[in-house]
Amino acid sequence: MTRELVEYENASEAARAVYEDIMRTRGADDVNNFWKALAHDPASLARTWEAVKTVMAPGALDPLTKQLVYIAVSITNGCEYCMVSHGAAARADGMDEAMFAELVSVVALANQTNRQAVAYGVPVDEAFRDG
Amino acid sequence: MTRELVEYENASEAARAVYEDIMRTRGADDVNNFWKALAHDPASLARTWEAVKTVMAPGALDPLTKQLVYIAVSITNGCEYCMVSHGAAARADGMDEAMFAELVSVVALANQTNRQAVAYGVPVDEAFRDG
Amino acid sequence: MTRELVEYENASEAARAVYEDIMRTRGADDVNNFWKALAHDPASLARTWEAVKTVMAPGALDPLTKQLVYIAVSITNGCEYCMVSHGAAARADGMDEAMFAELVSVVALANQTNRQAVAYGVPVDEAFRDG
Amino acid sequence: MTRELVEYENASEAARAVYEDIMRTRGADDVNNFWKALAHDPASLARTWEAVKTVMAPGALDPLTKQLVYIAVSITNGCEYCMVSHGAAARADGMDEAMFAELVSVVALANQTNRQAVAYGVPVDEAFRDG
Amino acid sequence: MTRELVEYENASEAARAVYEDIMRTRGADDVNNFWKALAHDPASLARTWEAVKTVMAPGALDPLTKQLVYIAVSITNGCEYCMVSHGAAARADGMDEAMFAELVSVVALANQTNRQAVAYGVPVDEAFRDG
Amino acid sequence: MTRELVEYENASEAARAVYEDIMRTRGADDVNNFWKALAHDPASLARTWEAVKTVMAPGALDPLTKQLVYIAVSITNGCEYCMVSHGAAARADGMDEAMFAELVSVVALANQTNRQAVAYGVPVDEAFRDG
Repeated sequence: MTRELVEYENASEAARAVYEDIMRTRGADDVNNFWKALAHDPASLARTWEAVKTVMAPGALDPLTKQLVYIAVSITNGCEYCMVSHGAAARADGMDEAMFAELVSVVALANQTNRQAVAYGVPVDEAFRDG
Repeated sequence: MTRELVEYENASEAARAVYEDIMRTRGADDVNNFWKALAHDPASLARTWEAVKTVMAPGALDPLTKQLVYIAVSITNGCEYCMVSHGAAARADGMDEAMFAELVSVVALANQTNRQAVAYGVPVDEAFRDG
Repeated sequence: MTRELVEYENASEAARAVYEDIMRTRGADDVNNFWKALAHDPASLARTWEAVKTVMAPGALDPLTKQLVYIAVSITNGCEYCMVSHGAAARADGMDEAMFAELVSVVALANQTNRQAVAYGVPVDEAFRDG
Repeated sequence: MTRELVEYENASEAARAVYEDIMRTRGADDVNNFWKALAHDPASLARTWEAVKTVMAPGALDPLTKQLVYIAVSITNGCEYCMVSHGAAARADGMDEAMFAELVSVVALANQTNRQAVAYGVPVDEAFRDG
Repeated sequence: MTRELVEYENASEAARAVYEDIMRTRGADDVNNFWKALAHDPASLARTWEAVKTVMAPGALDPLTKQLVYIAVSITNGCEYCMVSHGAAARADGMDEAMFAELVSVVALANQTNRQAVAYGVPVDEAFRDG
Repeated sequence: MTRELVEYENASEAARAVYEDIMRTRGADDVNNFWKALAHDPASLARTWEAVKTVMAPGALDPLTKQLVYIAVSITNGCEYCMVSHGAAARADGMDEAMFAELVSVVALANQTNRQAVAYGVPVDEAFRDG
């Protein structure tokens, strides 16, 4: 369907309100293409932004750890847009090359061992059931 | 194929050497079922353990962050064994219920937004190409 | 391997027969690139077309519902070609922007909650076992 | 982590409010295990329920179509809980055996052709780019 | 939906004809559960069996190689039924423990390196484009 | 992060040693882009090359069979780089168009039937449990 991005000046009032909250929260003067694509459906735009704002905020886990987890999932699912946009966010939060390289190594290792565990049908250890 | 787990007393000499290094490194008196399943192929057992020992060790990322990333991939791939065994490791490294809940929320969010980015064919922002 | 598309004039007799059935069934004067790629293997071309023709035809589910389901799977698997080609088919069958936006929201939601159910290891409710 | 389900009597006030809205909306006197698992994290419980309530409601697509799409994604991701619980919801909305069988055939076909399109690197048709 | 397996004596005439062809082709006196599950939809049963019979037959690739490829996909998708049933078929065709162990190692390696290639956004080499 | 490829002249000593072993082993005068991307992390480069060299070598399975399995996984995961680079390796080992076409058919079939087995929740046959 329409892949055009919705720029602020063409956005509905509901979408503009979300754009403004994104820009205010992030201290930026524009929003990323992801939001401009979602703006065709302002209700989904608002719901998704609300979830991102809440879930990625500091909490029991710090924001950088959350970005690393987000990138790990995006690599596994093969979503280039998500890898690149959250890669930028992670860099802004302090991820350097060495951290990214280790992140990729853990993601690669998990994808490897996940398949080995499945292939051998490894039963869960009793010790893990107790906890 | 054979799903029997290889206990230490039935393991080949090569496999026993790996078991011993696992137990020494982890200060444990047994190895998890994953290793007992891989022991049918001692070369693969040795290579996989070497990778796990190296990749999951402290480095630019701390061990708990690595466990969280590992769990995130395992949830996305639907590997119950890996989720449960690394969940135990993460708890030993300090993951509490609140941290686990936030981890699941980030994983769920990324799986959601990955599909939205794909469905709308969102082009990567110029700003992300620069960095 | 060869990625060249097989145009009608270069197609084998067996492939041409399939092309003609596709064009007749769809009232079109050409076939999509997908079929031109499969035509290197006429037996696979014929088998795949037979399956598409049968499975996507009106039945207990109407054709538009089937296209929506097809697109949902293609988004989840990240297949751009399939999303775009069946997106065009769905539009021809009546999908408008509002329907597409809701489709994406359901796909995104399912990808989110699928991972939550896995992460928490939710047991199937007794009530669902009865039915 | 804790896999115990949170029953109403043990739920926090915030979780109880969500349980009540679920029961009221669905005309049921209990909530499914999925919600009892999420209740360890009331904020996530509330956010997820709000999304499910909004996204699965009648709109441009009818509720049964949405359930079918949801099941299609859950089959592709291999989430048994989601398949079974939304299968029950779809039956309540009118899905019969013939419809389920056709749904599975479309999901199977899409998973097949998604891989064929990827394997042959099929370029998107010019005609699909126009729309 | 109904998960009951359809035994020969309860199968429709159309389903019985497929069961008979499966038993004749395989020299067996019963069919696997997979076919008994599909028999609720005789058209799908017939179409799927026709595809399996054709695709898995000796051709440019020998039957064992095809079984190994089939198992590799099933491990990657986490389908236990498919892994186990085609594991039995592969053993009947000559797969021994050493071959299975190497198969798992290749599958695990590919799952690892697939994610590394995606994470680093590796561009396809010019040399591979020529061929 | 940095997507620049590391050419030999800019590589660290540790990375150069790996490049040299790759070129020697393969009788080539350059290494593929995959290795040039991994070279930002020489330890990961060395570990990954060691695994590829060992796992893809002749053993209980011949090298061509291993390449076919590797390609099958890469198609299923949607990794274009891996499909194309190992496609070239498989051709060098003797894969012709007819073999590739059959490989794709098996991969497509497995992706189809994997989902059917999951959708119908097919229980593993007793006979397969015995072996």
